[in-house]
Amino acid sequence: MKIIGIKDERDRYSQGIWEGEYVRLLDMKTGHVIGEKPLETVRWDVPSRPSKIVAVGLNYRLHAEELRMPLPEEPVIFLKPSTAVLPHRETILWPPQSERVDYEAELAVVIGKEAKHVSMAEARHYILGFTPFNDVTARDLQRKDGQWTRAKGFDTFAPFGPVIDTEWWPDGSTSIRLRKNGVICQDDVLGTMIFSVEYLVSYISSVMTLLPGDVIATGTPAGIGPMAEGDEVSVEIGGLHPLVNFMGKRSMKDCL
Amino acid sequence: MKIIGIKDERDRYSQGIWEGEYVRLLDMKTGHVIGEKPLETVRWDVPSRPSKIVAVGLNYRLHAEELRMPLPEEPVIFLKPSTAVLPHRETILWPPQSERVDYEAELAVVIGKEAKHVSMAEARHYILGFTPFNDVTARDLQRKDGQWTRAKGFDTFAPFGPVIDTEWWPDGSTSIRLRKNGVICQDDVLGTMIFSVEYLVSYISSVMTLLPGDVIATGTPAGIGPMAEGDEVSVEIGGLHPLVNFMGKRSMKDCL
Repeated sequence: MKIIGIKDERDRYSQGIWEGEYVRLLDMKTGHVIGEKPLETVRWDVPSRPSKIVAVGLNYRLHAEELRMPLPEEPVIFLKPSTAVLPHRETILWPPQSERVDYEAELAVVIGKEAKHVSMAEARHYILGFTPFNDVTARDLQRKDGQWTRAKGFDTFAPFGPVIDTEWWPDGSTSIRLRKNGVICQDDVLGTMIFSVEYLVSYISSVMTLLPGDVIATGTPAGIGPMAEGDEVSVEIGGLHPLVNFMGKRSMKDCL
Repeated sequence: MKIIGIKDERDRYSQGIWEGEYVRLLDMKTGHVIGEKPLETVRWDVPSRPSKIVAVGLNYRLHAEELRMPLPEEPVIFLKPSTAVLPHRETILWPPQSERVDYEAELAVVIGKEAKHVSMAEARHYILGFTPFNDVTARDLQRKDGQWTRAKGFDTFAPFGPVIDTEWWPDGSTSIRLRKNGVICQDDVLGTMIFSVEYLVSYISSVMTLLPGDVIATGTPAGIGPMAEGDEVSVEIGGLHPLVNFMGKRSMKDCL
C-alpha cells in the first residue's frame, strides 16, 4: 500500500491510498475509504502528521569516520519539532540566523500503532512503512549550541515523504543517495547502518511512547554538505518514491 | 482565569475554568462553556495538551555557577516529547536505564496563539498564562549521551500544572522553590533568570512556530538533586497553584 497526505481546498489534511491514476481518500478517524479522486487533482502534503520526530545521530560507519567520531555504543537520539515538517517539492526556508544549511538523506520509519517497550523481535509489527527524510541542519548553529534542537528545529527543516510504502522493507544492499542538482553527493547502502531499524524502534520505545504517525529518522550516511539558494535536493532510497525539495533564498528577513 | 485539564469517565481530555467550588467545562474546538461540574467530582489532568515542550538550559546565574558553566550568550534550547507529560499528584516512573533521576523546578509559559517571529514587545500577547513545571532528568544519561533528549524524554518526565493562571505575571521578586518531602531544596527568585520570558518567546518563535497549548519551560535555579523512591516533590512559584508529584519505584522492569 502507498499512503500519501492530501491538502483539500480548505487546506484540511487527510491521508489517501495511491493506486495508479487514483487516490482513495481515508477518513482520519476511522481509516475507512470515503471516496476517490483522480491523482492529478490532489494537492500532496506530508504522508503522516507526526506528534514527534525522533532522529538518530551517527548511524552509518563512514559518516562517523567523516566526523572523526568513535562508533557509538548506543544510538544518540534527538527530536525535531512537528512544526518542522515540509512536503515533497516544497521549499526549505533559509533562516537568517545561519550561514550554512546542510542536507542529510535519511530513511524514515513511520509508526503504525502505539509502541512502548517493544522488543526487537516485535518491532516490525509497530511499523506502518518507510519513506525518505531530509534531516536539514544549520551546521554552524549545531556546532555553536552543543544541543542540536535549534540547528535542526527550524520550520521546514523536516521534509519527508511523499509516499509511505507499507510493503517495502530495507535490505543491506538497498541504496541510499542524496542528489543535489542531479549530482550524487551521498551514496551508501543501508547495510552499513550501525543500529538496525528494529533496534531503533525497540530502543526509542523503551524511552518514550511512540504514537501512530510518529517518524524515526534513522541517521545519515557520509557525504553531508551545504545547500545554496535554488538547489534541488532529492533523497533516493531503493524503490521508494524519491523526496525532492528546493533550497530557499539566503535570508528570510524580507519575509518577516 | 484559572484553567485546568480534566479527564472524563472515558478518559477523554478537556479543559475547564476553575471558579471556587465549580469547574466550567470548555468545548475543546470552540472554547465555549458547555457545562459546569462541582470541583470535587472532576479528575484533574495536565492543563494543556502541548504539541511540543521547549525547554531552556542554564537560565539562572547560580545554577550556571553550580555546574561550573559560563553564562550563555544565547539560550540553549531542547525539546521534551509530548508523551512525557504527567499530571499533578501522579507518579514519575523510574526508568531501569537510569541510576539517578533529578527534579528541576521551572516556571512554564503556556502559549495562547500561534507565534512565529514574535518580537519581545509583542511576546506578552502570545502567552496564555503560567504554571509550574518539573524538568525531570536522568542525570547519569544526560552526562553519557551529550544530547539531552533521552535523559529528559522518558514518559512521565514532564509533570506540569495543575492550573494555568492567565492573570498572574512573573516579577523579579517572585520566589521559585522546590520542596522534597517538605524540605526546601531549590530556593531562588525569578529576577535571577538570565533570559526573560519575553526574550524566550521571541527567541524560540524565531526558530519554530509555537502553537496554542505549547509549553516553554524556562530553566531551573541552583539546588538540583536526586529523588528517591516515594519522595514527594513540589514546585512552588509565587502565587501559582503548586505542582506536587511522587517518585516511583527504583526499577520499572516488573511492570514491563
